Amino acid sequence: MKVHVITIGDEILSGQTLNTNAAFIGDILAGIQLDVNRISVIGDDKDAILEEIGYALENSDIVLVSGGLGPTHDDITKKCIVDFFETELVLDHEVLKDVKELFVRRGRKISKVNEDQALVPKIADVLRNSRGTAPGLWIEKDKKIFIAMPGVPYEMKEMMTSSVIPKLEESLSGKRVDKKYLNLLTTGIPESTLFERLGDIDELLGGAKLAFLPNQFGVKMRLSVKGKNEEDIINKFTEIEQRIRSLVGRYIYGKNDELLESVVAKLLVERGLIIAVAESCTGGLISTRLTNISGSSSYFERGLITYSNGSKVELLNINEDVIQKNGAVSLEVVRQMADGVRAISGADIGLAATGIMGPSGATFDKPVGMVYIGLADDKICTAKEFRFGEDRLLNKERTSQAALEMLRRHLLGIPYDE
Amino acid sequence: MKVHVITIGDEILSGQTLNTNAAFIGDILAGIQLDVNRISVIGDDKDAILEEIGYALENSDIVLVSGGLGPTHDDITKKCIVDFFETELVLDHEVLKDVKELFVRRGRKISKVNEDQALVPKIADVLRNSRGTAPGLWIEKDKKIFIAMPGVPYEMKEMMTSSVIPKLEESLSGKRVDKKYLNLLTTGIPESTLFERLGDIDELLGGAKLAFLPNQFGVKMRLSVKGKNEEDIINKFTEIEQRIRSLVGRYIYGKNDELLESVVAKLLVERGLIIAVAESCTGGLISTRLTNISGSSSYFERGLITYSNGSKVELLNINEDVIQKNGAVSLEVVRQMADGVRAISGADIGLAATGIMGPSGATFDKPVGMVYIGLADDKICTAKEFRFGEDRLLNKERTSQAALEMLRRHLLGIPYDE
Repeated sequence: MKVHVITIGDEILSGQTLNTNAAFIGDILAGIQLDVNRISVIGDDKDAILEEIGYALENSDIVLVSGGLGPTHDDITKKCIVDFFETELVLDHEVLKDVKELFVRRGRKISKVNEDQALVPKIADVLRNSRGTAPGLWIEKDKKIFIAMPGVPYEMKEMMTSSVIPKLEESLSGKRVDKKYLNLLTTGIPESTLFERLGDIDELLGGAKLAFLPNQFGVKMRLSVKGKNEEDIINKFTEIEQRIRSLVGRYIYGKNDELLESVVAKLLVERGLIIAVAESCTGGLISTRLTNISGSSSYFERGLITYSNGSKVELLNINEDVIQKNGAVSLEVVRQMADGVRAISGADIGLAATGIMGPSGATFDKPVGMVYIGLADDKICTAKEFRFGEDRLLNKERTSQAALEMLRRHLLGIPYDE
Repeated sequence: MKVHVITIGDEILSGQTLNTNAAFIGDILAGIQLDVNRISVIGDDKDAILEEIGYALENSDIVLVSGGLGPTHDDITKKCIVDFFETELVLDHEVLKDVKELFVRRGRKISKVNEDQALVPKIADVLRNSRGTAPGLWIEKDKKIFIAMPGVPYEMKEMMTSSVIPKLEESLSGKRVDKKYLNLLTTGIPESTLFERLGDIDELLGGAKLAFLPNQFGVKMRLSVKGKNEEDIINKFTEIEQRIRSLVGRYIYGKNDELLESVVAKLLVERGLIIAVAESCTGGLISTRLTNISGSSSYFERGLITYSNGSKVELLNINEDVIQKNGAVSLEVVRQMADGVRAISGADIGLAATGIMGPSGATFDKPVGMVYIGLADDKICTAKEFRFGEDRLLNKERTSQAALEMLRRHLLGIPYDE
């Protein structure tokens, strides 16, 4: 089963709007084991739309189009469908009733262009739109399925969920292979090292697929497995995940869309621990990530962004001589920051970071990207040096990620140094 | 000039990853008057990649590919290019040097798969990658331009900006219709109000085009103008911009891709002023935005994330009775926070925010989305109430934006209340 998603709109081509519609469609289709093979984006242009529909129906079994069904002059998808399928527009009384009722509900006057929404291609089944005026269209021809939906995200999503998915499941019952995805999220290990530590990848996977998706927060390992049925797939996942964890488990902080801040938040709440943060180079990013989680006031006590040396001395009781001797960016200072913020706030754990984010600020022995992260509780006070890159914002993100990872490993008793 | 952007990756087809790369490419190409005609997304599959490259080169003049150039087994774009252009891989010594240096800089050991990144198709010019190991490839054949870039967003963006755009501008000089874009960035005014204040839009624009692009940080007004030549376009822009500014100028904080934090940073540096921040609900986001700007240590003294009531009393000398009487989320408390952080730090300006970000934390008279922002210097101490939405992260972003906007207006002497 080949699936092609076409989204129509100049604003996506020009990068002003992210193609969240295609992502939603891909994700919800994956839920019924349909893989999208191709997404294309074209502008509000009749020739381009006709060409694309032709190409899609020739090469795929299911074609989903979103966009261009609205009431204004630049919505031309319906005209293109009429031309392409050599059909004509007819008035659908159900749709007309829906549109009229919507206007009554919103207390607005209906106009001619709104009523025209009830004109639909004769060849199509109508997919009713509970959130707007443009109906969706479902056309079956030559064993292919063609579906057109409005481009307004909340209208399209509702239509996908309550009409398209059930209709597709009905049409396709018995025709599909079961396939599912699992993401394993790692941090603190480069893509190439991860790859090497997994050893013989074909042996490991035994027919499953694995993709490595790196970004500044770490490497996502995306596993996809096909199977006879749900149970078979889950068994395969469990087996492969176990093998992967036995090789690189300490780097895996979460699954699927979990965020590292959610993982550590959960651990802190479970253990009833309170944290306080002292940040220099990250300027508040570690704290803002820790407080992005609802209910963070139960584990986050305070954050001190001690940017100036004066504020480090004043707020964290760091010995001025230590700063003079080692520099503000040093193992010794980050240790005192972590321990200082813990002691002053009365929190259980103190977490701290200092570093040179760039582009300015480098010295002879401390290049841009050099970072120290420290962690203290009532028993230990540990610190580690990191070397990140050249870009200021990426360095801040990497530092915050490394700090939260140090916290995660501390909470789970996983040693930070390999 | 027809432009086709191809992004490769199963994770985009399945909706796990938003296609931000295509949006970035569309946006940056628009900046040099190149409109993207088609975006397509295909999986990590050799046949599909070869077919798509063929289709794209047949139907377009410029083809940009991102993704699949990394070091692991699922990165197959380079192999496809070798096959498609019937060429071979050769070792590029410059790239090998770059890769080796990157590993030295990061203090990591290099492996065989990393060194293989230096193997490039013989037919291609290399686009060096300053942020990773996979070089970009530039191929010209039969008057068409084919460009392949890594899929990691921050690597691709750097390569687009510093290599691809200049090379394209050079190749295309004299071949394009002159058309330019100007973004005017507003905040603190809803899209519909902005639209109404501009009055008769056709008269205002005189043939130019204007799009309103709202997000949580404000509304971007995107102006596009065609003209006989560069000078003609600049004159039209100047005229329209002046008219727009006379109507809604106070809401415009910047142009094009400027960030509000850069605007206020520049103003603080120009005036030689030092700021300190006290945050509750934003949890460090205001401070992290202010310190995202290189050289921020010249104007940012400290940030205090006083999350607990205890920390507010202890660090900001806020009267405990005032918190008891008004609640921590109140005009009175935010005033004392702004004034307190200023007084304690010795900074010229104190900026503060407190609010209910949700989903939990609402009370009978203080719903989710209620926020107070305060600003103090040695003469004034002002505060204002805001009502944002339901979503926690959007509320944090909106609050940080409103706080920076209050600072901008204070520095420029623009009254905050209309």
